[in-house]
Amino acid sequence: MPLDNLTQSYLPAIEDELKSAIALTKKPGLENLHQMMTYHMGWEGKGSGPKARGKRIRPLLTLLTTEAVGGDWNRALPAAAAVELIHNFSLLHDDIEDNSPLRRGRPTAWKLWGVPQAINTGDAMFTLAHLAILRLEETASSSIALKATRVLQNTCLHLTQGQYLDIAYENREDLSLNDYWPMVTGKTAALLGACTELGALVADSEEETRVHYRHFGLNLGLAFQALDDLLGIWGDAAKIGKSNASDLVEGKKSLPVLFGLGKKGGFAARWANGSITPAEVPGLADQLEAEGAFDYTKNIADQLTGQALEALEWANPQGNAGAALHELANKLLQREL
Amino acid sequence: MPLDNLTQSYLPAIEDELKSAIALTKKPGLENLHQMMTYHMGWEGKGSGPKARGKRIRPLLTLLTTEAVGGDWNRALPAAAAVELIHNFSLLHDDIEDNSPLRRGRPTAWKLWGVPQAINTGDAMFTLAHLAILRLEETASSSIALKATRVLQNTCLHLTQGQYLDIAYENREDLSLNDYWPMVTGKTAALLGACTELGALVADSEEETRVHYRHFGLNLGLAFQALDDLLGIWGDAAKIGKSNASDLVEGKKSLPVLFGLGKKGGFAARWANGSITPAEVPGLADQLEAEGAFDYTKNIADQLTGQALEALEWANPQGNAGAALHELANKLLQREL
Repeated sequence: MPLDNLTQSYLPAIEDELKSAIALTKKPGLENLHQMMTYHMGWEGKGSGPKARGKRIRPLLTLLTTEAVGGDWNRALPAAAAVELIHNFSLLHDDIEDNSPLRRGRPTAWKLWGVPQAINTGDAMFTLAHLAILRLEETASSSIALKATRVLQNTCLHLTQGQYLDIAYENREDLSLNDYWPMVTGKTAALLGACTELGALVADSEEETRVHYRHFGLNLGLAFQALDDLLGIWGDAAKIGKSNASDLVEGKKSLPVLFGLGKKGGFAARWANGSITPAEVPGLADQLEAEGAFDYTKNIADQLTGQALEALEWANPQGNAGAALHELANKLLQREL
Repeated sequence: MPLDNLTQSYLPAIEDELKSAIALTKKPGLENLHQMMTYHMGWEGKGSGPKARGKRIRPLLTLLTTEAVGGDWNRALPAAAAVELIHNFSLLHDDIEDNSPLRRGRPTAWKLWGVPQAINTGDAMFTLAHLAILRLEETASSSIALKATRVLQNTCLHLTQGQYLDIAYENREDLSLNDYWPMVTGKTAALLGACTELGALVADSEEETRVHYRHFGLNLGLAFQALDDLLGIWGDAAKIGKSNASDLVEGKKSLPVLFGLGKKGGFAARWANGSITPAEVPGLADQLEAEGAFDYTKNIADQLTGQALEALEWANPQGNAGAALHELANKLLQREL
């Protein structure tokens, strides 16, 4: 199990790098700012621990890529910390924007400290991410640090563009399947593409290899999202650990829903009629499946999975880390339906 | 009047650079994201125009510094755009955090488009600032671009730390004069220090010169803030264009107020008794003056002004731009009481 073995070496180093990035706010008088960050990162406060921290998939992807290209993963730690901090900054702001009271089973930062401080803590974490990646000057080179900064900034632009669409879509009833991709590419896939691209960049790989790794991460993100949308309606609640009713009840404009709306059949008619109750979910999920949304989404998820694995093959990852990248991709993409 | 002459050449170039930075969001499907930015920048929408744009003091400081050091101001345009975008990003988020409905006489972005989109538009503008400064790779060098990125990121960290304190102070009644400086250094002065430092950095000046310019900008910012606090209580409403009642009525913990609270006299007793009404302001301003707050604040503002001008002397700025920097400093620091 190369993935488990490598994860065991990487994870503590990732946490250390994250902690040292965040320690820039550990100053007299700023105790509470630092505390908001360590709470949100899952290190401190009620309910802290591995579950509250999330799986650190993004930094793991970065380090695995560096090693799979033949580089020293330790040199990629600044990039690994940066992508995880960007992810967490976006969660801090998303939770406010979505009015979410809970994140990984714990009260969100804005619930505990109010919207103004939570916005500002997100801004501070955004900055810490960009400061973190500059440490590549020490571990790699100035040239790599500058290129990595550009990759990260472009990714953040995509992230905010995807988030703009996600918020805008809430009030739009005229969406089609075409509207789905720019949104999820920005919100989910762009950062995963940056994780693998940065990993390759730190190892100073050829540009072609870097592009293959970016495509791997990007398609992994898209496939993951399509699958997540599928599980959000037809997943086994017990196995996936969340209610499969939630996506329909929350009115989430996921891929199967957009497919169903395009069919203008029974599902679309019911959707147009206002909020869906939990009791309606099983029947409506069956209706949506009968209209072809399950097969359509499954098919897309399979296609994207194929593209991700093909890009990984082109990238030609080496050694244990290469095997671990395959393992991680399979793990993410073969969650049970 | 070197300042007017130079401003006339610089301003259109600044606006062009800003527009091209923001044009990264000009994509099909993102029209409204782009529109929120152009509205906030004062270019479009109701009430747009020079007044809605503000004075662009920060980018002017950057360009003047580059030229005063003997560099070509055109090469500093990416840094000039970056500091103005950082300033505007912070205003977008501050307006939400302070619950402000108006900015420069126009409805704020969150009032028009809601809090979620305004937070995200701020995040996108933050990213655009960092992408803007990377264009120094073209106009200066990779090495300067990387150094400038670090200066800007460190400044953003100070900015968010100052903002953290500002929000935290709202609910604290135990503040002393010592609490004032970390807050205004972060919120106001750090970015002004970055403006002048970046200007010198682009001209590839010696480190000593750069430090003098940073001190000039930093002290200019602190002096400006102390003076602004003075005007906020004793300014001539007609001359400063805002009601001098507002700081006391809004309960702003400005420098004279913190001085008065430390005196534990009549002013402090009244302050502890709850919100101040506009009718009470003239009497309370007199009381605060009698307790010594006016003289104290004026004295500090004068000291800081002296430090700013001394740092500028050490920096030894050249030519018309040097004269214009003096003129700008005097203009900012000699607003009428």
